[in-house]
Amino acid sequence: MEVDALTDVDGGLNLTDGHARLDLSPQQAAVIARLPEMFAVATRRSFPSIETAAHRAFLDAIGQHSAPVGSGRILSCYSSTLSTDIVARALPAGATVAVLHPTFDNIADLFVTRGLKLVPLSEEALLRQEWPGAPVDAIVVTNPNNPTGLVTPEGHLRSLAEHAVRHGQTVIIDASFRGQVRDAQYDTYAVLDAAGADWIVIEDTGKLWPTHELKIGLLAYSERTRLPIERAFSESLLAASPVVLQLIEALAADWVDGGYERARDLVQRNRDAVREAIGSVGLRLADPESQISVARVALPVDGPDSSLLYKELLERGVHVLPCAPFHWADPESGLRFIRLSLARPHATVASAARTLADAYRELSAAA
Amino acid sequence: MEVDALTDVDGGLNLTDGHARLDLSPQQAAVIARLPEMFAVATRRSFPSIETAAHRAFLDAIGQHSAPVGSGRILSCYSSTLSTDIVARALPAGATVAVLHPTFDNIADLFVTRGLKLVPLSEEALLRQEWPGAPVDAIVVTNPNNPTGLVTPEGHLRSLAEHAVRHGQTVIIDASFRGQVRDAQYDTYAVLDAAGADWIVIEDTGKLWPTHELKIGLLAYSERTRLPIERAFSESLLAASPVVLQLIEALAADWVDGGYERARDLVQRNRDAVREAIGSVGLRLADPESQISVARVALPVDGPDSSLLYKELLERGVHVLPCAPFHWADPESGLRFIRLSLARPHATVASAARTLADAYRELSAAA
Repeated sequence: MEVDALTDVDGGLNLTDGHARLDLSPQQAAVIARLPEMFAVATRRSFPSIETAAHRAFLDAIGQHSAPVGSGRILSCYSSTLSTDIVARALPAGATVAVLHPTFDNIADLFVTRGLKLVPLSEEALLRQEWPGAPVDAIVVTNPNNPTGLVTPEGHLRSLAEHAVRHGQTVIIDASFRGQVRDAQYDTYAVLDAAGADWIVIEDTGKLWPTHELKIGLLAYSERTRLPIERAFSESLLAASPVVLQLIEALAADWVDGGYERARDLVQRNRDAVREAIGSVGLRLADPESQISVARVALPVDGPDSSLLYKELLERGVHVLPCAPFHWADPESGLRFIRLSLARPHATVASAARTLADAYRELSAAA
Repeated sequence: MEVDALTDVDGGLNLTDGHARLDLSPQQAAVIARLPEMFAVATRRSFPSIETAAHRAFLDAIGQHSAPVGSGRILSCYSSTLSTDIVARALPAGATVAVLHPTFDNIADLFVTRGLKLVPLSEEALLRQEWPGAPVDAIVVTNPNNPTGLVTPEGHLRSLAEHAVRHGQTVIIDASFRGQVRDAQYDTYAVLDAAGADWIVIEDTGKLWPTHELKIGLLAYSERTRLPIERAFSESLLAASPVVLQLIEALAADWVDGGYERARDLVQRNRDAVREAIGSVGLRLADPESQISVARVALPVDGPDSSLLYKELLERGVHVLPCAPFHWADPESGLRFIRLSLARPHATVASAARTLADAYRELSAAA
């Protein structure tokens, strides 16, 4: 559905994927203007020096001061999806992996394709700190979670890490949306290392900045990790672009210099617009406290479900995502949610939200 | 070894990977200067329109006029490696695939990782047009071949395509180095379609232009192809960067306007420098007719082999590739070849070739 929305030649409003498609701020535009200069620097400065500087700047900007920058245990990938696939490949074939539920379905897809067995870990279980034991070999938590925005509190992560150490499990954190949420920016690496955990963390720049897919997925792993991650990485790519790494470094500098607040305000304004539009027809946000750049609309059980609403919106040129796929172990349970991306210009989001409200009103009336 | 060479913080001469690391020509530099403008265009022009224009420009520039531009059957990937992995994933698990031998070992690695069975197809068999029958389900030919530079002549491709149709096989062509070699720029898609073949073709911009990993791997497939390629693609990425696609379009325009000749002359001059340097110690090029941007040096059976020479060169700060891995089905047979990338500034190649000659002379004398 995301690919369809992107390749819709008739235009239409694409609110499917979580990639940042906001207008550039003046500060970001000034960074983009320096791209040719970054290109020249890539020719004369060594790749390791460019890469380390980018890792340091980005990870510091999102509170990850204990990440193993410069140790060789942070790999720069073309995307967080590729990072996830490398992890899936490095895990032992046939391993059992507990994965948060619901969450971004791409994780489950890639893991299943690589021959891993999945069991769901509900958000409720996470909040109760009920962690799975044998035969689970690894536990995957998306933090903040996509699409719900749920943040795993620091104490909960510590509990998970200590549990995993006791059970010989690997803790895998997909922190792709972390940059947007201060509450998720506690020093994850310090918590995991203090517990003595075997961990893998994926970070992403793709959700933060509207850089037209010029982005990096970071794949970091602990000193204890014995999985063949480097081998899987070298099968997939030689290196990320040193131009993109410099872009990340510069945008990270802007992020700590007001960029975070500017982006957050924009997303919040878009969330408010959705709340207001859907409120007019009695709908509400499923996750009113969420701070990430997507919003779920909750659909009452006695009204049209998300697959019906999805089709109706498509007719009206608005692309959104029904949430069934996020509920990868139980798609039925996702039928009552529909997801809109908020990382779009305000007018786009406001117009789409009004269309959603209209469509919902008419579908309800016709039923 | 390629990753090690890239991350060698002490500098040294890196002649391992086939990625273009030449200096920009003035014409290419003028294209790079337009990157910020391309970024702005990516915001206001639709993705399908940018992508189709890039496909048309690039494929026309390398003679592939019958490629299915605009049909939806050309997917833009971050790299040709990712294209290869998507093909590996789309092929039925357990399928038997004949792969050219020797060739770029990444193909064999990715296919084996995805659970495919491989059988080698020698260059001699290709030249004799002896194609494998059952139980082979697909035949992979790298054209031009890496590292040997062997071009599959048009008539040979036709013979392969007709054979594959008779045997219900898929023809897979990795044409990553095609842009460098006019002899390989006959219209591959016309040949394959005329035979009625089920085909997949991978094209690459990464070997042509020194764009610091801002590149695209194209994955094209025939109307007859029933493999779940789109599904595998959508698991891997949403879309390539519209900025990079515009970069490709502009560099393709330069390629047909003298850029090809400028790059070819540079590579030829580098090949001559290697020939001259190694000739001084009685060594010769293994593939004197090759036109691609890598060169194999042949090592006599009574002298040091490539693994010994590789280590000695490492000591002297020169990174090259011993060829055993390219002989993925029989590594021993690659011990007598060592590969240098020619897509580097002339001084780098000339200096590395002289070091290679010196190292060979001293190792031979010590033996």
